[in-house]
Amino acid sequence: MTAIVTPSGPSLAMLDELFGSNLRRVGFRLWDGTPWPDDRSRDATIVLRHPGALRQMFAAGTEKALAEAYLRDDFDIEGDIEAAFELSDLLSGRDEGWWTNLRTYFHLRRLPAMRGESESARMFGERDDRQHTVPRDRQAVSFHYDVSNDFYRLWLDERMVYSCAYFERPEMSLDEAQEAKLRHICRKLRLAPGQRLLDIGCGWGGLSLYAARHHGVTVTGVTLSREQARLATERARAAGLQDRVTIELRDYRELNPARMFDAIVSVGMSEHVGRTHLPAYFRRAAQLLRPGGVFLNHAIGDGVRQRLRAGPSFIEAYVFPDSDIPPIPIVLQAAEGAGFEVRDVENLREHYARTLRHWVSRLEAAHEDALEFVNEPTYRVWRLYMAGSAYGFAHGALAVYQALLVKPDADGVAHLPPTRHDWYPAA
Amino acid sequence: MTAIVTPSGPSLAMLDELFGSNLRRVGFRLWDGTPWPDDRSRDATIVLRHPGALRQMFAAGTEKALAEAYLRDDFDIEGDIEAAFELSDLLSGRDEGWWTNLRTYFHLRRLPAMRGESESARMFGERDDRQHTVPRDRQAVSFHYDVSNDFYRLWLDERMVYSCAYFERPEMSLDEAQEAKLRHICRKLRLAPGQRLLDIGCGWGGLSLYAARHHGVTVTGVTLSREQARLATERARAAGLQDRVTIELRDYRELNPARMFDAIVSVGMSEHVGRTHLPAYFRRAAQLLRPGGVFLNHAIGDGVRQRLRAGPSFIEAYVFPDSDIPPIPIVLQAAEGAGFEVRDVENLREHYARTLRHWVSRLEAAHEDALEFVNEPTYRVWRLYMAGSAYGFAHGALAVYQALLVKPDADGVAHLPPTRHDWYPAA
Repeated sequence: MTAIVTPSGPSLAMLDELFGSNLRRVGFRLWDGTPWPDDRSRDATIVLRHPGALRQMFAAGTEKALAEAYLRDDFDIEGDIEAAFELSDLLSGRDEGWWTNLRTYFHLRRLPAMRGESESARMFGERDDRQHTVPRDRQAVSFHYDVSNDFYRLWLDERMVYSCAYFERPEMSLDEAQEAKLRHICRKLRLAPGQRLLDIGCGWGGLSLYAARHHGVTVTGVTLSREQARLATERARAAGLQDRVTIELRDYRELNPARMFDAIVSVGMSEHVGRTHLPAYFRRAAQLLRPGGVFLNHAIGDGVRQRLRAGPSFIEAYVFPDSDIPPIPIVLQAAEGAGFEVRDVENLREHYARTLRHWVSRLEAAHEDALEFVNEPTYRVWRLYMAGSAYGFAHGALAVYQALLVKPDADGVAHLPPTRHDWYPAA
Repeated sequence: MTAIVTPSGPSLAMLDELFGSNLRRVGFRLWDGTPWPDDRSRDATIVLRHPGALRQMFAAGTEKALAEAYLRDDFDIEGDIEAAFELSDLLSGRDEGWWTNLRTYFHLRRLPAMRGESESARMFGERDDRQHTVPRDRQAVSFHYDVSNDFYRLWLDERMVYSCAYFERPEMSLDEAQEAKLRHICRKLRLAPGQRLLDIGCGWGGLSLYAARHHGVTVTGVTLSREQARLATERARAAGLQDRVTIELRDYRELNPARMFDAIVSVGMSEHVGRTHLPAYFRRAAQLLRPGGVFLNHAIGDGVRQRLRAGPSFIEAYVFPDSDIPPIPIVLQAAEGAGFEVRDVENLREHYARTLRHWVSRLEAAHEDALEFVNEPTYRVWRLYMAGSAYGFAHGALAVYQALLVKPDADGVAHLPPTRHDWYPAA
């Protein structure tokens, strides 16, 4: 039986067949304006640009192909892009009925490999050790962070803090919540004037500058991003803090291990280390820290509701090459192996969902300006990855942890206050 | 050359040879009153009861033999018993010079096996699966906790809380610090009136009664100790809480998995579960907990400065048979494997050192009364294990963690307040 192919006919049938009533928050609109399943407005609308769009999106059955169809403008997403991750949920879920539809419709010979890892591989699996050489890490970091300072400036907060904010009170703005995050971290570090702080992965210097200004410490910040190092140095000078904040374009492994710091902080950096290198990362940090010193490591980790990934990773290919976000037990195990004692762990995932929503809506509002600094596909990479991450943090597929570690002194003493009260002074 | 053996001669020579200047806080006194190395007072004095005492203590080269010599009264410990753990440190340390002395003096043919486990065995090693059947766990728990309620009453706080207290303010008494601990835990659980709380390993009911009285919840407490169940039930009745606190003499595995609780707490119990059974422990807890509910697990774990153990374990043989205190990453890994999300982890080891010092000094002060309920060796088992544990917590060989876990709802949402501020209201 041969269907008469009209411009809209096959795609409407495809939509019926593929999705039936599987979608709650997402509707479609065809290239000729036809809505599916009806003309009621939904949280997100997938705009198909041409009759072949659905095939581009779903025939490969992988998340990466779906993302690439968006980057190529086979489709666009209107409205709340986070809601559109229902589509991705189907690909990464285990709904056999849906996969049967997909297979039948596109004549897939077999299910695409579900490359999500088993629990044991997820916890202990070896990754490729050829990754994470110093030059390759430099490349990987540059790929993401050197895209354009002007681009980042458009949608980050005024301090350009590119990590989870802390919405201590619900009504806080992004600027306020990023300041609250820096305050929260510095409280956890219990910095005292004159101390030496090492900031591994200092970004554009937000935390380094805050700690120097508000706690009178001397800070060494290191980053592998040339753009970050340049701007962070400029900002230190502009703030009159050049004597107390030194930014070094340097891998943490290139720090002289004879240097000694009173405290170490690393925010949103250890995701680039790789789990096979985490033990060496923590060992190096332990070398650089005086006995009795603290190390706050703030990093994204796999959440407990992590979905299996259908096929190759969009994030790996387009966003963070070589990144790796092991679950928190793996991080703590590596830290303990280096002699660090776990003192406090805090999961802030809802704060990251909120932070990312701010970034996405600010980026969307600055779409036109953004195109002065990056091209449309790059804009779409950031819009897509940040919305998907918000969705992941909100639904437990991702987590973000602040882990406060201490290097006990020779007698095994930690030298900490007895409680965490001082982190929560009365408002 | 044959030495003329006098009653004190060989032991003084032994002491010179064995310890030289290795001890800082410990002195000896022989059975005839002779002090060694001199008559200056030290933190702890080891009183040798007879000329063969040193051989009994050290010839086997194991911690267990050393402890047994104390239990048999080959020696006694005067003064600060915690300081005497310098002796045990030598046995469990890696001071080759000291071991050479020991080997030479007692003609040991080879070093006693250092049964401390390698890092990987420590983390992932299989334990004997024949342990931790329900009947055997019942026996193991009874061995320790059924010794005599009257004995425990002599030196525990008024609530008989047999776990780490929380010295929120340094001047707190033991009673106050135990109440502060119960308050801290209930704050973390964020209990609301009418909720159903499960208390796994409820001991003598301290936490169950506190939660029912102060938070209006309905509590089911389970314990494997007949003595604990009996007294906890009595106390619930005496407090007029019998309608809201039910104590069951039951293994947690025997709870009907169809029962559903709003929150679960387990304090000082999971040390008896065994690491190979931790995944099943957390899976059972997850079954018993409503989606969105929290589980606070409070347990001792190996510290990062854990020493190798010389020979078989005193704790295993005399104190807690079948107990197992995996490091915190192992606990969290098992919890994640059961679908729990890690929200907060707090290390309270210094509080446990302090708690144990209270217990030891109260026990010592009640020595005579204690002998009405237990014999002298039993008294010594408790004195020794508690002082040794205080030493371990103070010096990082042991840690104690409160881990707050959440079972996310079907959408992966945790339903928690955004910060931990509410755990730290202004004084």
